[in-house]
Amino acid sequence: MSLSIRNQLPGTVVSVTPGTVMATVKTRLNGGQQITAAVTLEAVKDLGIAEGSAVRALVKSTEVSLATGPVTGLTIRNQIPGTVSSVATGDAMATVKVAVEGGELTAAVTKDAVDDLRLAEGSSVVALIKSTEISLAAA
Amino acid sequence: MSLSIRNQLPGTVVSVTPGTVMATVKTRLNGGQQITAAVTLEAVKDLGIAEGSAVRALVKSTEVSLATGPVTGLTIRNQIPGTVSSVATGDAMATVKVAVEGGELTAAVTKDAVDDLRLAEGSSVVALIKSTEISLAAA
Amino acid sequence: MSLSIRNQLPGTVVSVTPGTVMATVKTRLNGGQQITAAVTLEAVKDLGIAEGSAVRALVKSTEVSLATGPVTGLTIRNQIPGTVSSVATGDAMATVKVAVEGGELTAAVTKDAVDDLRLAEGSSVVALIKSTEISLAAA
Repeated sequence: MSLSIRNQLPGTVVSVTPGTVMATVKTRLNGGQQITAAVTLEAVKDLGIAEGSAVRALVKSTEVSLATGPVTGLTIRNQIPGTVSSVATGDAMATVKVAVEGGELTAAVTKDAVDDLRLAEGSSVVALIKSTEISLAAA
Repeated sequence: MSLSIRNQLPGTVVSVTPGTVMATVKTRLNGGQQITAAVTLEAVKDLGIAEGSAVRALVKSTEVSLATGPVTGLTIRNQIPGTVSSVATGDAMATVKVAVEGGELTAAVTKDAVDDLRLAEGSSVVALIKSTEISLAAA
Repeated sequence: MSLSIRNQLPGTVVSVTPGTVMATVKTRLNGGQQITAAVTLEAVKDLGIAEGSAVRALVKSTEVSLATGPVTGLTIRNQIPGTVSSVATGDAMATVKVAVEGGELTAAVTKDAVDDLRLAEGSSVVALIKSTEISLAAA
């Protein structure tokens, strides 16, 4: 199966914290970064996700934000540092590719944001992804 | 491959409108509803998505909102009518399952919203999904 | 530090409702509007978010929908009225800026939606934001 979801990061589940309807799943990516996904408890059960499970973390490009440096005091759990490898700009939107440890991320952001942050090839950035925007695929 | 993404609706692509970096893809679901997905142009090319392509529309539960009836004058392109089949409530969040033509949708919404709208088994609802929240899988 | 996240609204936390893994945080914006954010409980604890905390509500442009008037019977908790100040249209997507009490919001929506709703400078709109799409930054 091919997915339009641009960001697919392989890793291994470190812990699962089940709630009543939601669960948070922490995964160590193959690139070394740790990420947190908030998914439905039902999905965790259906996929048999547990500590040690091989998964891929899936993130739609439109869910990836960029910061020009690490951000403290933020509820966004996932911060992945990297370097901009390319920027494609349209009239309203832009896609920014970011080389990160172990792979590449694509972020779809507004053209305004690219202009304001002066994002260009070589810019150091931190990709920000809200936990609720990460899905998991059983690898 | 198994996905934590709860909502996977099969259909056939009706049209593709390419922009510079994004594209909108209209799909007729097997249940008869038409939906619009805003994905990166790159994804459309990589997957070879074109009129007639068999796809599945993927939507994370946290991206599905519910209304108690059709809503006009709204930028949200996708409105799928259905009937609540079950509600599971936690302390902060709730999951609502909605039977729709041709399948079922799961929405993860706040407990507050379930209480305010008095959602229960049998409630008529319309599921609202923003185009940027729909991914596509080549079937 | 600069963020690609276009929408950053300052406010003060009014209440926190913790679940097992998620929490809902109600914040009164400086513009007077009240908003609800659904974030991980872990994030609330890490940031020490409690009643009275000064925060900024962060919302990615792709997560903001627009309606031409208030919508009732909707699970989307956050409805912020305003007036369109500008529209930038691409082939597939458009960005709409909305002046709201105390600031400005940017919404990235499909070009189709802008055409259908005839959004233009001066249009009265209500910005709709799902609770799960709001992140918080400690101010």
